[in-house]
Amino acid sequence: MTAPFRETEVFAKRSIEDISRGPFPHSRKVYVVGADPSIRVPMRQIDQAPSLAAEGIETSNPTIMLYDPSGPYTDPDAPIDLRAGLPPLRLEWILARGGVEELDNITSEFAQRRATDASLNAIRFQRLRRPLRAKAGSRVTQMHFARRGEITPEMEFIAIRENQRAEEVIEELHLQHPGQNWGASIPKIITPEFVRDEVARGRAIIPGNINHPEIEPMIIGRNFLVKINANIGNSAVAGSIEEEVEKMVWAIRWGADTVMDLSTGPHIHETREWIIRNAPVPIGTVPIYQALEKVDGKAEDLTWDIFRDTLIEQAEQGVDYMTIHAGVLLRYVPMTARRLAGIVSRGGAIMAKWCLAHHQENFLYTHWDEICAIMAAYDIGFSIGDGLRPGCIADANDEAQFAELKTQGELTHRAWAFDVQVMNEGPGHVPLHMIKESVDKQMEWCGEAPFYTLGPLVTDISPGYDHLTSAIGAAMIGWYGTAMLCYVTPKEHLGLPTKEDVREGVIAYKIAAHAADLAKGHPGAQVRDNALSKARYEFRWQDQFALSLDPEKAESFHDLTLPEPGAKREHFCSMCGPRFCAMALTHDVRETARAQAAQAGMQERAEAFRRNGCCLYAKEDNTQRQGNIEKDSSASHG
Amino acid sequence: MTAPFRETEVFAKRSIEDISRGPFPHSRKVYVVGADPSIRVPMRQIDQAPSLAAEGIETSNPTIMLYDPSGPYTDPDAPIDLRAGLPPLRLEWILARGGVEELDNITSEFAQRRATDASLNAIRFQRLRRPLRAKAGSRVTQMHFARRGEITPEMEFIAIRENQRAEEVIEELHLQHPGQNWGASIPKIITPEFVRDEVARGRAIIPGNINHPEIEPMIIGRNFLVKINANIGNSAVAGSIEEEVEKMVWAIRWGADTVMDLSTGPHIHETREWIIRNAPVPIGTVPIYQALEKVDGKAEDLTWDIFRDTLIEQAEQGVDYMTIHAGVLLRYVPMTARRLAGIVSRGGAIMAKWCLAHHQENFLYTHWDEICAIMAAYDIGFSIGDGLRPGCIADANDEAQFAELKTQGELTHRAWAFDVQVMNEGPGHVPLHMIKESVDKQMEWCGEAPFYTLGPLVTDISPGYDHLTSAIGAAMIGWYGTAMLCYVTPKEHLGLPTKEDVREGVIAYKIAAHAADLAKGHPGAQVRDNALSKARYEFRWQDQFALSLDPEKAESFHDLTLPEPGAKREHFCSMCGPRFCAMALTHDVRETARAQAAQAGMQERAEAFRRNGCCLYAKEDNTQRQGNIEKDSSASHG
Repeated sequence: MTAPFRETEVFAKRSIEDISRGPFPHSRKVYVVGADPSIRVPMRQIDQAPSLAAEGIETSNPTIMLYDPSGPYTDPDAPIDLRAGLPPLRLEWILARGGVEELDNITSEFAQRRATDASLNAIRFQRLRRPLRAKAGSRVTQMHFARRGEITPEMEFIAIRENQRAEEVIEELHLQHPGQNWGASIPKIITPEFVRDEVARGRAIIPGNINHPEIEPMIIGRNFLVKINANIGNSAVAGSIEEEVEKMVWAIRWGADTVMDLSTGPHIHETREWIIRNAPVPIGTVPIYQALEKVDGKAEDLTWDIFRDTLIEQAEQGVDYMTIHAGVLLRYVPMTARRLAGIVSRGGAIMAKWCLAHHQENFLYTHWDEICAIMAAYDIGFSIGDGLRPGCIADANDEAQFAELKTQGELTHRAWAFDVQVMNEGPGHVPLHMIKESVDKQMEWCGEAPFYTLGPLVTDISPGYDHLTSAIGAAMIGWYGTAMLCYVTPKEHLGLPTKEDVREGVIAYKIAAHAADLAKGHPGAQVRDNALSKARYEFRWQDQFALSLDPEKAESFHDLTLPEPGAKREHFCSMCGPRFCAMALTHDVRETARAQAAQAGMQERAEAFRRNGCCLYAKEDNTQRQGNIEKDSSASHG
Repeated sequence: MTAPFRETEVFAKRSIEDISRGPFPHSRKVYVVGADPSIRVPMRQIDQAPSLAAEGIETSNPTIMLYDPSGPYTDPDAPIDLRAGLPPLRLEWILARGGVEELDNITSEFAQRRATDASLNAIRFQRLRRPLRAKAGSRVTQMHFARRGEITPEMEFIAIRENQRAEEVIEELHLQHPGQNWGASIPKIITPEFVRDEVARGRAIIPGNINHPEIEPMIIGRNFLVKINANIGNSAVAGSIEEEVEKMVWAIRWGADTVMDLSTGPHIHETREWIIRNAPVPIGTVPIYQALEKVDGKAEDLTWDIFRDTLIEQAEQGVDYMTIHAGVLLRYVPMTARRLAGIVSRGGAIMAKWCLAHHQENFLYTHWDEICAIMAAYDIGFSIGDGLRPGCIADANDEAQFAELKTQGELTHRAWAFDVQVMNEGPGHVPLHMIKESVDKQMEWCGEAPFYTLGPLVTDISPGYDHLTSAIGAAMIGWYGTAMLCYVTPKEHLGLPTKEDVREGVIAYKIAAHAADLAKGHPGAQVRDNALSKARYEFRWQDQFALSLDPEKAESFHDLTLPEPGAKREHFCSMCGPRFCAMALTHDVRETARAQAAQAGMQERAEAFRRNGCCLYAKEDNTQRQGNIEKDSSASHG
């Protein structure tokens, strides 16, 4: 099945150390095994230090499990060979389900030419498997199996993954505010049956091309943890294939759940192969970008045949979801004429130009059923593009945007008839008060298919900080029900992001996604906050760092002013210093209260304290404390 | 009135260049003069380049005026002498209103000792004026004048300042989304009468101690532009007095509307004097910090006399608003025992410790009327502290927080009886869905006195990024009606912020405040977004940078990948490159449509275009375009 291995230039001159590896500080990679031993769900485990009570008695703190999309790269025991690619975890599941055939050769003419072009030998990924495709008359999508009532191993994997072993965390840390979920239907425990049912009704998707068996399955839907996507790409020379692979590994290290490869240079076919073969997360693309390269950048020269061949080329490489701008209809283009910023989606602008040049309907729209049939044959998910999304505050929620959204809804329902999984892309630039409207309309018109938005940015005036500006909108739109948030980096509108920009963008969006999970009251979402805040309150600095979204930055910021190892045992940081640390003062307050209560003659005072709130700052167990928190918050929201 | 000048060590060895000065790129400092020529309102003026139409015809773009709190430091023509302090702009207004007396000597015993301590000569600010105080039986607060129906020069200044010459901006850029203001009462044009009425009813405050005549008046209230505060402080050695002054100048350069000096070292009295004398913005403090220094950090040794002397010391230096934690009542302390993170406010922890140690009611609460009388005598605003604010998500909106908030309401109404201006401090750490509740309760219990919140942070898991995490909460709470947002820097929870952290924090909060203004539909708020987006769409890079919150960073990010001067005339950036720039493609679309319409034989097609949307991408004037935008958005919200 594997072609004989030949040395290539890519990664030949670089050592494996050029790829970001290694576990996070004070964390271990663990795998939770499902009913079938081939189901091994990765998690990041943090073993916390004990708490030290006043009397010198230690009480243990629970192990915390974190959702971990970083793949084997953070497992020091995993053998990584980028030239071989990751192990095809899902391959046996896919083959066991049946309905697929192994092709003798790749189908795409373009891909065939690339495969036989000797000038590309040095940069080509070598150990290719033969492509899989659904047999004629067979359906192989997760939606198909779900609708038949079957639970796939992917669904079981996802159920374990989404729960994050929450059932094992002791009650106290699990308690949280009830949340406001705007009509979501989030169960307390995610079961494989729930995963199946959500996929069956189109409310969630499991992106996973049958030609991308390397992925660790994940799910995108409003009733699951909010996910984030990171865009990489734009390399134009062979030498940077390594950079793009590293960017992918880097993005998932910080928490990206999926990665879109938006490369536009001459070697996007080869770059994509390297990325997919080494990606444990779903990979998305925008096929029209590559199609445009094939016609030398002339939108008007695009044809259905060129696009179709590109679709199949990418399908057989293993792209998991594709952005397709089929909702940009000829009659919507004039609606953008009055806009301040016109069309800001590249795909949208390309299709608008094609429509005008030919004065014909968008060929992606007119060929939608054929596209659906191709997507179904490989289990590729749609990410129906929002080519007319607003590019500035002034254009938000306008006629063009909503006209296209309605067509996205029509296309969604047509795709579902083919058992093809669908999500819908959304804006863009939207002021705070208009965000909910766009979510509500998407849910209504697109039948609750997962919404996948870029930001939105809540003002236009912050170039250089648009990761932050868009994270504000992203947190809100995630709270309202958006299933996946596409990150924006600080370089948005200005230039190509660096690796550091990727990290800033990913962390900004992890914050937004988690804030949304908390606000929706997602079960278990508050465990990490509670654990980190308890560690902070008890001055367990290392646990605080380990539980942070970016342990390295948290520790380095602390160490900038207090670098001595002993400082991490101190009950203050340089922000307030020892005398003014409120947390340290609070501990004093607790000590004072305890001493008073113990003192003879203070009995009456202690009684009064007990009447007021019971055991003022005396040693209470955690269950009591947390239990009361929930009670309080329920009362104030009841 | 001015003491004879003697050389001091502070700023003696440093040149004036150590203070950040100079205008922003492509910007000019201008002053709009009021009815009285002594009213000169500073603004930042940006003169834009013309737009270039296809036929080579230039059309001019309007001059944009920006609200500018940076003071004379960004005016290259202003003489700056830090050892002399800024000119006392308001002094003649204060004296003309009457009711004040000039004291022969400072009143505070502590301040008197400092003034005669020869060891401090080298670091003391020399050119002190004699302090002013209200004459016995006189009231001199802005609230007092407002309630009497008088319009002070400060009020006229503010009316001009808040409008930002919006009435002069051509109609097109002024058009914007109507907004959702949650019951605010924002007029289309701010008049001096409106300013007066808002101050009279306590819904807005004009912080301005009669001993701080150097400030350029500004207002804080839910019906005005949302303001932001930056905290500086914590210098403990003489050598860093310059650093603190520079941090203040730096913070206002990036847009801080007020600055709180939270210094806790041995020379806080002297540092504060230097800051106030050079500050064109209101300065806030937390007097309990200094009082605690005076009792060597022992909270239990605090007394009303020490606190009272500290109040007067700071009052006569010119502090404009003071955080006072009078709402931390003895009976509320036990409510924090069940919390995950206890008390996280320094002032709150200090007062809780005092209450417990003495088992007496908070002396700030029991002496409230005396405090009010002192505040009234100098026109100092209250910022009633939230000593029991939640320090983690788990503790949000709990019994302790709301018990104190109710007491803040009681204290607010009592202060208003003395004509003292009041705002209320708020949280803290709050998940998205619980933010509105805290605003609603504050408005109800505190009679719509301006709310002034720290963030809130919407999750606990992001140390190192908490400027961003809290800006999410800040944008939302600002939208709901919070009048001023206290910034958080990336170093929050970890260490003392650097100058760069101050900049990151200020810009994050300018974004949040502006996003809130847009969402509230504040008249004219969208002018800057519209202008920047039009510049972006037309590839006027320099105008785009100039209109950005941080022009330097925007330009430097662009130049990282495309440094050649010619790149700033290009119709793309390195993010997408020339072939894939959607904006450039959109211009192509426009050209295509125009060419088609002009072509003979295409008449019928052109007719169809006209029927569909009229003049598809043909040259329409801006008024039409923008006019339609407003119509669209009204329709979708009507």
